[in-house]
Amino acid sequence: MIVPRLIERKRNGRALTRDELRELVLAYSRGEVPDYQMAAFLMAVYFKGLDRDEMTTLMEAMLASGSHLDFSHLQIARVDKHSMGGVGDKTSLVLAPLIASLGIAVPMISGRGLGHTGGTLDKLEAIPGFRTQMTMAETTRQVEDIGCALVGQTAELVPADKKMYALRDTTATVEVIPLIAASIMSKKLAESLTGLVLDIKCGSGSFLPETEKGLELAKAMIQLGESHGCPVVALMTAMDRPLGHACGNALETKEAIDMLHGGGPPDFVEVTFALGAEMLLLSGVCRSMEEAHSEMRRAIAGGQAAEKFEEIIAAQGGDSGVVSDTSRLPQAACEGVYEAPADGFITRVEPRAIGHGIIALGGGRLTMEDTVDPSVGFVITVKPGDKVAKGQPIATVYARRKSALEIGRRTLQAAIAVGDAPAEGCALISHRVTASGVENFTAHG
Amino acid sequence: MIVPRLIERKRNGRALTRDELRELVLAYSRGEVPDYQMAAFLMAVYFKGLDRDEMTTLMEAMLASGSHLDFSHLQIARVDKHSMGGVGDKTSLVLAPLIASLGIAVPMISGRGLGHTGGTLDKLEAIPGFRTQMTMAETTRQVEDIGCALVGQTAELVPADKKMYALRDTTATVEVIPLIAASIMSKKLAESLTGLVLDIKCGSGSFLPETEKGLELAKAMIQLGESHGCPVVALMTAMDRPLGHACGNALETKEAIDMLHGGGPPDFVEVTFALGAEMLLLSGVCRSMEEAHSEMRRAIAGGQAAEKFEEIIAAQGGDSGVVSDTSRLPQAACEGVYEAPADGFITRVEPRAIGHGIIALGGGRLTMEDTVDPSVGFVITVKPGDKVAKGQPIATVYARRKSALEIGRRTLQAAIAVGDAPAEGCALISHRVTASGVENFTAHG
Repeated sequence: MIVPRLIERKRNGRALTRDELRELVLAYSRGEVPDYQMAAFLMAVYFKGLDRDEMTTLMEAMLASGSHLDFSHLQIARVDKHSMGGVGDKTSLVLAPLIASLGIAVPMISGRGLGHTGGTLDKLEAIPGFRTQMTMAETTRQVEDIGCALVGQTAELVPADKKMYALRDTTATVEVIPLIAASIMSKKLAESLTGLVLDIKCGSGSFLPETEKGLELAKAMIQLGESHGCPVVALMTAMDRPLGHACGNALETKEAIDMLHGGGPPDFVEVTFALGAEMLLLSGVCRSMEEAHSEMRRAIAGGQAAEKFEEIIAAQGGDSGVVSDTSRLPQAACEGVYEAPADGFITRVEPRAIGHGIIALGGGRLTMEDTVDPSVGFVITVKPGDKVAKGQPIATVYARRKSALEIGRRTLQAAIAVGDAPAEGCALISHRVTASGVENFTAHG
Repeated sequence: MIVPRLIERKRNGRALTRDELRELVLAYSRGEVPDYQMAAFLMAVYFKGLDRDEMTTLMEAMLASGSHLDFSHLQIARVDKHSMGGVGDKTSLVLAPLIASLGIAVPMISGRGLGHTGGTLDKLEAIPGFRTQMTMAETTRQVEDIGCALVGQTAELVPADKKMYALRDTTATVEVIPLIAASIMSKKLAESLTGLVLDIKCGSGSFLPETEKGLELAKAMIQLGESHGCPVVALMTAMDRPLGHACGNALETKEAIDMLHGGGPPDFVEVTFALGAEMLLLSGVCRSMEEAHSEMRRAIAGGQAAEKFEEIIAAQGGDSGVVSDTSRLPQAACEGVYEAPADGFITRVEPRAIGHGIIALGGGRLTMEDTVDPSVGFVITVKPGDKVAKGQPIATVYARRKSALEIGRRTLQAAIAVGDAPAEGCALISHRVTASGVENFTAHG
């Protein structure tokens, strides 16, 4: 393999063979191809793309670079949900125990928050004692025992992806759809799944704000799943405003627990149920949307979902008492109520501004080395389109110090706009994408 | 400076500011920006280019990364000639002593051969004892003393270019005109020149075979020279066949010495005189082409040019006796005559094939680590358009061993084509490019 010739070929817009690309990725993972050659290759891919076969080969090489979870002996369905990330997105904390309580294995490997987006691991770690770094053997055992584990990526799992992602992050080669798709799917398929549900965010707070790009990514990931025998369904959901009310780690964990007890803001409940229904359909446990929804409502009303969360928390060393008493979660020292600045309609609740506000309060990360205060954040009880009166409380800031409340107030001032007429936002769930095509729920006629 | 943001900006087709690009290059040269970020940046430049200001900034940053020669105290013109490289191109070996013998300083920093192209340093090192690695102080002293030094690049001279060129070579980012132009011009302007003549090769054996690309490169380099107060003139010359007859280090050195004694093949003499005339005009020593040509003829006929070469060789530790007795140059152990395979016209003498044949005989390099046998090569006495009779001797192979003569024979068989009618090749000198525009010597009417 003469690496400069492979870079040159991609640069000239031609495809690499399966063997060439596989060997390039594996040799890079072993440290035999230097970072600078991979960086040049990835920038050439930014401009010239990867075709379907190359994308599949890339993902397979990433998978082959490390060890995998293996649950093929379990004889039950194994389904996960992956979200592109956003602000206020705590669906994983409900879906994992809810779906596992219905007899489906959920081996969920998640990430941390970075930039304006939050991360499931950070929300879980808001629970005192909760341990997200587990070995692959521990993860396997826990999924066998209680049907679910909520863990971070280990060094053994798809190391080529880990190394390549770190390189992309520092070389402006992140925003390439086949690279994103192969990166996500290599990690998800290493979970030994029989089905996967994707939550593709669209709108200003999404990593890929344009619907077209989101659909393209969804199709690429569905193709990769199919090539590996794992059916994938994607829903496109709104991220032009935060999901639910709570934004900030412990606040979001509390909101997720509220939903496991039958509460929660309507938009958060609707998206979570929609994703959960897809998981249940993929697993084969339910045959229709109606059946799936009624099963989920039953598991919540009967307490099994909340009990499953307690079981998972206990298994991972956390204080399971938080499920019945959310005051055991970290509490911010100071609270400040934010009022509507004028009469009118909410026209905008900008998720990026809220996400950056959480960082400013000490609850998020600009680099992976930053530590996070789980207690801080916002609870915003209005949505675009809501009618408000001047002085009406519409949000609360949670902060470590009185002086920080001002940071929160300014964040809300910049993020929330009030106008004379209700503005139209993204549909909460706009598209459903499967191997057979795209359903557009917003299409007229 | 946040490097990923600079890479991203270039990737998106936008220009960097002068300060940003300068700092990027200097920080890279100091080892503070890693190779992988520079590799991604260079690949983005491959696709999005550099504008005039960026190219100038890049060259200035390269110049600023190291030390320069300084002859501003000399009060005489300092002129150099740079060739894009080819097969059989030994004009530097004649021009340096010839022009220096006319009272002009020629501080010539040259390179080695790589791939199919030869290099001036290798040809000089065919002279027993000739030392091309000199310190900048030694080089300066020698130019002050005898008006000329023929040396290789030192580590102190434009280190940013050296480092960046090595990276480009391994990341498929060599063929980018503003990068080529800035790289060459940073080295040439570090010679403290008052004028520079470029020999831009076109045709199949050139690094940039298309005339349009060659003209673009010429214009870029002229612009860079002008921005630095150094007038530049470029001639475009033919490299769809070797220049002169001799191809191979010692063989070419002998042919150059022949010309210094008034001999040499007509095409080699014509190109050398054309380049030399431009050097004399730029230096201000001559006022017209006619005067320049007659001065050069006089310096050769009177022996001053050959004497200057002896002086240079002696100053650099070489055996100056080779100038009066070329049999003191390394001689190949075996010779084999090659005959025309048929009656007809020579339609092609392919320089790349000849260059690769020299490597196969042990006289060239595939990597910079290869060592070179100076004695081997070819003398090819025919040119495209010549009429030949079957069995007529048209070339000689020079090899280390009898068994290698066959390699040479096969090279000539593949490189030289005989057809029924004379084919048209590139004009020997097709264009002259200056800051005021392009003269096309091949244009009709």
